[in-house]
Amino acid sequence: MAKPISVEVWNPSGKYRVVSTKSMPGTRWIRLLADNGCRLEICTEKKTILSVDDILALIGNRCDAVIGQLTEDWGEVLFSALKRAGGTAFSNMAVGYNNVDVEAATRNGIAVGNTPGVLTETTAELAASLSLAAARRIVEADQFMRAGLYDGWLPHLFVGNLLKGQTVGVIGAGRIGSAYARMMIEGFKMNLIYYDLYQSTRLEKFVTAYGQFLKANGEQPVTWKRAATMEDVLREADVISLHPVLDKTTYHLINPERLAIMKKEAVLVNASRGPVIDEVALVEHLKANPMFRVGLDVFEDEPYMKPGLAEMKNAVVVPHIASASKWTREGMASLAALNVLGKIKGYPVWGNPNLIEPFLKEDATPPAACPSIVNAKQLGLPSSKL
Amino acid sequence: MAKPISVEVWNPSGKYRVVSTKSMPGTRWIRLLADNGCRLEICTEKKTILSVDDILALIGNRCDAVIGQLTEDWGEVLFSALKRAGGTAFSNMAVGYNNVDVEAATRNGIAVGNTPGVLTETTAELAASLSLAAARRIVEADQFMRAGLYDGWLPHLFVGNLLKGQTVGVIGAGRIGSAYARMMIEGFKMNLIYYDLYQSTRLEKFVTAYGQFLKANGEQPVTWKRAATMEDVLREADVISLHPVLDKTTYHLINPERLAIMKKEAVLVNASRGPVIDEVALVEHLKANPMFRVGLDVFEDEPYMKPGLAEMKNAVVVPHIASASKWTREGMASLAALNVLGKIKGYPVWGNPNLIEPFLKEDATPPAACPSIVNAKQLGLPSSKL
Repeated sequence: MAKPISVEVWNPSGKYRVVSTKSMPGTRWIRLLADNGCRLEICTEKKTILSVDDILALIGNRCDAVIGQLTEDWGEVLFSALKRAGGTAFSNMAVGYNNVDVEAATRNGIAVGNTPGVLTETTAELAASLSLAAARRIVEADQFMRAGLYDGWLPHLFVGNLLKGQTVGVIGAGRIGSAYARMMIEGFKMNLIYYDLYQSTRLEKFVTAYGQFLKANGEQPVTWKRAATMEDVLREADVISLHPVLDKTTYHLINPERLAIMKKEAVLVNASRGPVIDEVALVEHLKANPMFRVGLDVFEDEPYMKPGLAEMKNAVVVPHIASASKWTREGMASLAALNVLGKIKGYPVWGNPNLIEPFLKEDATPPAACPSIVNAKQLGLPSSKL
Repeated sequence: MAKPISVEVWNPSGKYRVVSTKSMPGTRWIRLLADNGCRLEICTEKKTILSVDDILALIGNRCDAVIGQLTEDWGEVLFSALKRAGGTAFSNMAVGYNNVDVEAATRNGIAVGNTPGVLTETTAELAASLSLAAARRIVEADQFMRAGLYDGWLPHLFVGNLLKGQTVGVIGAGRIGSAYARMMIEGFKMNLIYYDLYQSTRLEKFVTAYGQFLKANGEQPVTWKRAATMEDVLREADVISLHPVLDKTTYHLINPERLAIMKKEAVLVNASRGPVIDEVALVEHLKANPMFRVGLDVFEDEPYMKPGLAEMKNAVVVPHIASASKWTREGMASLAALNVLGKIKGYPVWGNPNLIEPFLKEDATPPAACPSIVNAKQLGLPSSKL
């Protein structure tokens, strides 16, 4: 007999059986499901990542829908099991879905939901937090203080970078990159240089208008520049944040040659995807350049770090928490719950997955729609009017 | 025979003997003195804080001026010794001078310089860095990662606060408090509530204009409110930063009663003076409220922390590094050097100690004036035209 698996059951007599492979932040998502006829089972196993066998056990022989995580392997095995159990819906609690074989889901008639539209600001704020922590050496200064090494004010102690008037470099000026750029420009009066295959007209226009606003207020305006090459950004910027998509053109975007052209006292931040940086080369560069500082939310071999990184004082390393705000994580949970609930109820798919505010209002009834289904077209699901 | 004291000598044949009790950041201050006829002796002793006896040994029997530190006790003993050695000038490398008995200096005919005008932005940026580090739990997340405890993404891991749309509370809206407020308002679209005995018309006007600018740009405007009581700020704000002056009315401003009315998930930042917070009460509050977070640059018994603080995961603690940017610290060193050089040369005192940019230009000849002498009036020193 297989080992039992632990779950917490909400609304035991609900008509539809919905499984969540993990506990998720907040209670609104639980309420949304339980109040709408679902029996919700939340897995309470302590292990961080559930195996395919664990999830098969959770699905059992009667299951309408599952809410899963980016760390799980959702392919033919799980989707065909979910179909056999009578299921029609799955939602990742994530905007990405590289853990999901969408074709296998479509083949099995399973809708695949994701949770876009709530991560932008929280992710950009984490990149800003890493930028400031690295610039002002917060982590190493905290360790020094806790270790009892502080015995009086000294002129040279943890001297860092003043951001005001320096240049922020953004590589990839999409939604998150643009939001981060604005935080550093407006908050710290940094000038912008960015590199992107596409012109970010919206960002350029905003920075121009903001510069004029500052000038009208008797202050030094900020400036922007679109760089012709990524190298121009690396050479000129004092603080650089990476916001590209990960594909074969951006794998090891930051390599030994590109590290070499950066300023010796630059700050480099990565809250996008780990393999964008050649992490072995980065460790070498950090060792050779003690005033070069880095803030990392993601790692090439996540959850592991390359040898030596954990010992570097000029690195700030956090465990993939870019989307970890209460608002975002509770929003992601709500959207995942509403994706599977909408499919169960036969609701249409929401017209614009990036305008999902109506689904997030704490005390309001959400629209009768699935917020975001990535294979809606393939499954021929109807679209709702906005 | 007394122990010898180690110094590094620049321009040994200089006409005027100037002593610096510490090495200071950058080289411009050294050049300014050495190129203008001074023999500069920089103390190279390893101990963090020099005693009065150490400094007496440095002064010796012929000394024109000394540059000293906030950690040293500058009273009658040192000023009379400096006078006997033929000296006429002292400068703190600090904007504050609570380590200096200014009356004793005046009695001995010694000018006392300080270094205002270069700390505002760097200090406000440190308060912003502590706010973000505390809100997003950067230090505890970094320790978790370095300890190898991360084994995969989890919905509940280090969930923190999204700043956008939250309220920033500022207690003391002077130069630094206002600069900090603007970083949080413009950078993170926070709404402002502030408490100050004086109305900060300039800040209010700016936030109003910025709100209108956002609105004209099709965005949600930010708002401001001047609170009638400090308690209103503590009750309403999500992130609170303390920027009062330290006097008997602000000693233990944050006490058990006031901690009790703050939000359970609030962030409290102090980069002003340690005794503004009852640190024993704060430790108790941190223990009882694990989601309450604090960022501290200063401590009641600096350089020490009250028992228990070093063990709190919901605290970020850094060793009084608010002014620790390269630009500010090199600026402080230049201003301290120019204070003593100006007095030696018989220059007048600069008219506005907060408009000191002309003294900071890297490659330009500074004005023939002392940037900031706090007892200029008592000594009857002439004032320069701006």
